[in-house]
Amino acid sequence: MRFSSKIEKCHLSPMRVFSGLAAEVEERGKKIYHLNIGQPDIKTPEAYFDVLRSFSEPVLAYAPSNGIPRLVDAVRGYYRTLGVELTRSNVLVTTGGSEALQMLMACILDDGDEIVIPEPFYPNYHAAVTLTGASIRPITTSPAENYRFAVREKVEACINEHTRAIMLTNPGNPTGTVLSEDELHLMLDIAKEHGLFIVCDEVYREFVYGGEKLLSALQFPGYEENVVVLDSVSKRFSACGARIGMLISKNAELMAQATKIAQCRLSVSTVDQLAAAALYDLDASYFDATRAEYKRRRDTFVRKLSEIPGVVCAEPKGAFYVMAELPVDDAAVFQKWLLTDFDDKGETVMFACGEPFYVTPGKGRSEVRMAYVLKEEDIARALDILAIAIKKYNETH
Amino acid sequence: MRFSSKIEKCHLSPMRVFSGLAAEVEERGKKIYHLNIGQPDIKTPEAYFDVLRSFSEPVLAYAPSNGIPRLVDAVRGYYRTLGVELTRSNVLVTTGGSEALQMLMACILDDGDEIVIPEPFYPNYHAAVTLTGASIRPITTSPAENYRFAVREKVEACINEHTRAIMLTNPGNPTGTVLSEDELHLMLDIAKEHGLFIVCDEVYREFVYGGEKLLSALQFPGYEENVVVLDSVSKRFSACGARIGMLISKNAELMAQATKIAQCRLSVSTVDQLAAAALYDLDASYFDATRAEYKRRRDTFVRKLSEIPGVVCAEPKGAFYVMAELPVDDAAVFQKWLLTDFDDKGETVMFACGEPFYVTPGKGRSEVRMAYVLKEEDIARALDILAIAIKKYNETH
Repeated sequence: MRFSSKIEKCHLSPMRVFSGLAAEVEERGKKIYHLNIGQPDIKTPEAYFDVLRSFSEPVLAYAPSNGIPRLVDAVRGYYRTLGVELTRSNVLVTTGGSEALQMLMACILDDGDEIVIPEPFYPNYHAAVTLTGASIRPITTSPAENYRFAVREKVEACINEHTRAIMLTNPGNPTGTVLSEDELHLMLDIAKEHGLFIVCDEVYREFVYGGEKLLSALQFPGYEENVVVLDSVSKRFSACGARIGMLISKNAELMAQATKIAQCRLSVSTVDQLAAAALYDLDASYFDATRAEYKRRRDTFVRKLSEIPGVVCAEPKGAFYVMAELPVDDAAVFQKWLLTDFDDKGETVMFACGEPFYVTPGKGRSEVRMAYVLKEEDIARALDILAIAIKKYNETH
Repeated sequence: MRFSSKIEKCHLSPMRVFSGLAAEVEERGKKIYHLNIGQPDIKTPEAYFDVLRSFSEPVLAYAPSNGIPRLVDAVRGYYRTLGVELTRSNVLVTTGGSEALQMLMACILDDGDEIVIPEPFYPNYHAAVTLTGASIRPITTSPAENYRFAVREKVEACINEHTRAIMLTNPGNPTGTVLSEDELHLMLDIAKEHGLFIVCDEVYREFVYGGEKLLSALQFPGYEENVVVLDSVSKRFSACGARIGMLISKNAELMAQATKIAQCRLSVSTVDQLAAAALYDLDASYFDATRAEYKRRRDTFVRKLSEIPGVVCAEPKGAFYVMAELPVDDAAVFQKWLLTDFDDKGETVMFACGEPFYVTPGKGRSEVRMAYVLKEEDIARALDILAIAIKKYNETH
């Protein structure tokens, strides 16, 4: 029996590829500091669990395919605070931002098509694009230029007759790059001029540390047909396990196409939708406190990381990741060694290997993405372990 | 901007295509008996809600991509009662049976490939297949032959060099057909002889009304590489809104391919998985009681339906649907009229139109699928309304 040519081109997630091995190692008693996955340790707001506890329908029924109106309206209320007016049909609730991504790619990409994405990028984009038969055309960036990509010549050089869309993550995962208003405007202009969709993954919107105002591509008038936003409660409210995301666009035809897929998978979890709706009742002070906490963690992380000899990294301006080059040949080999051959007082660390964040062959092999989603003292300890490990690894390899 | 050629070939769900109109009609005060969706009115077991209420983790974290071990083991325990031994890696937890379907099709189908499916079939198969670039080759059946399809010549006539898999729903949706052990054995043999996957959607397994023992394709030794089972808690435990399904196969390579997609969408809802695990602690008496209830409903449904002049239907042997031919030219036109132009004492009915259950052009236009998921008195009333409506419709059209 044969498998599809598309699935053969997909890979295991670089964030989860070592998860089986890690589970074994943990079962044998070694402690792992998980910098590999953006799983915050911030408490999920109690409002979420209050809804679970008070759910009183006798039958756990299917929800409407496009989302429970209570949640859709809560999302609309949130966007209103950003100055964005949405109708109910502009919002499609999905099983995590991941389903919004898959659904959108299935709607807009065909075999042989291309989507322009700055690299390094969130590796799950690769599978979502590849499963449609399309491919990623990367806007190549480098740590030296602080991973900035919003330069007209660089972007336009990637556009050809196969291009259907430009995609960006803002704030950036894995780089922490935050677009200025002018940069985002430029990206929107380029998309509009070339008749392309511009897909903006904005799940880290609240996590900006330079005092910027919160930015969404939906705030810019005149790009309604081009802009598609992917959003999620996962990071914003530390509710990753809720699997509640959304596809947002004022392009009515796109939303009609996406609705076909939404109906074909029936609905999103009923209780998770209702509980997620309650999260949107939190006021801005919740985000302020969370942002302050992540800023402290970032500062600690970058300070400790830059003290390790041979590490190259820039200060991320948003999200909660650091992309860094380590003084090792191959981060994946180093990661395996960290799990199987190394410990410091019974403890080790995990990161996401950098190579799958790129499509350009050979790029990112020495790079890693690390998430600063742990408490400051855990971050400090994890980076001490990393420093010890790098030294030991380079003495023995 | 252009959409993908594949999404352009997909349709809105025939079960949900009138849902917007229905919501408007209901808002204006008309009562609708919903026979269109397989949404049972049976109470969801309290065990489910107990888990929601007692969830006490402070952080709602991502679950493992392939499923929470507690749920995977619960599923394995259930299959053990059917005489089927599964390892953890044979089971992949999905967001409803729908995600298992999409995931599987993405793994095994390529552009130009074919999958053999008896028609009429569950219409959401169409979108899942079409989005891969493949197409459905139907084994055509008819009400006159009781929708039976497990005949070697009929099946083999559909197999060619493009065929990658055979798919069946057992018990059948929309037909209620239940395969005998010999028939299922024959289908497995054909798949194996031709080197094909055989995809068995068994979400209605418990709903058989002739005293048959519960059947799964996994019970037959020797077909481990071929058999893939789609399963779900939705119908079994009246927990459709949980969106907990599973892809089950002993084909290790298939499960490895599917894991790539599972990782790319991160995980399934954490609380729904934990709550679903508790459902599997229920004993067989739960199924016995539910089965007896549905049998009574089926009997009432078929008796009342066959009293309507001009209706052609056979008695379904399993699941909870009746496929019937109505004495109208076009069921979709009739449905729209039922919603907008008709009521009996302020009440009307909805069904799923038959045409999208077929791929052969022109088939099914006068047919409808109705679900007997309502209380007996509601079924009786709904079919009285249908009888009045058919009479009035044919007097005025």
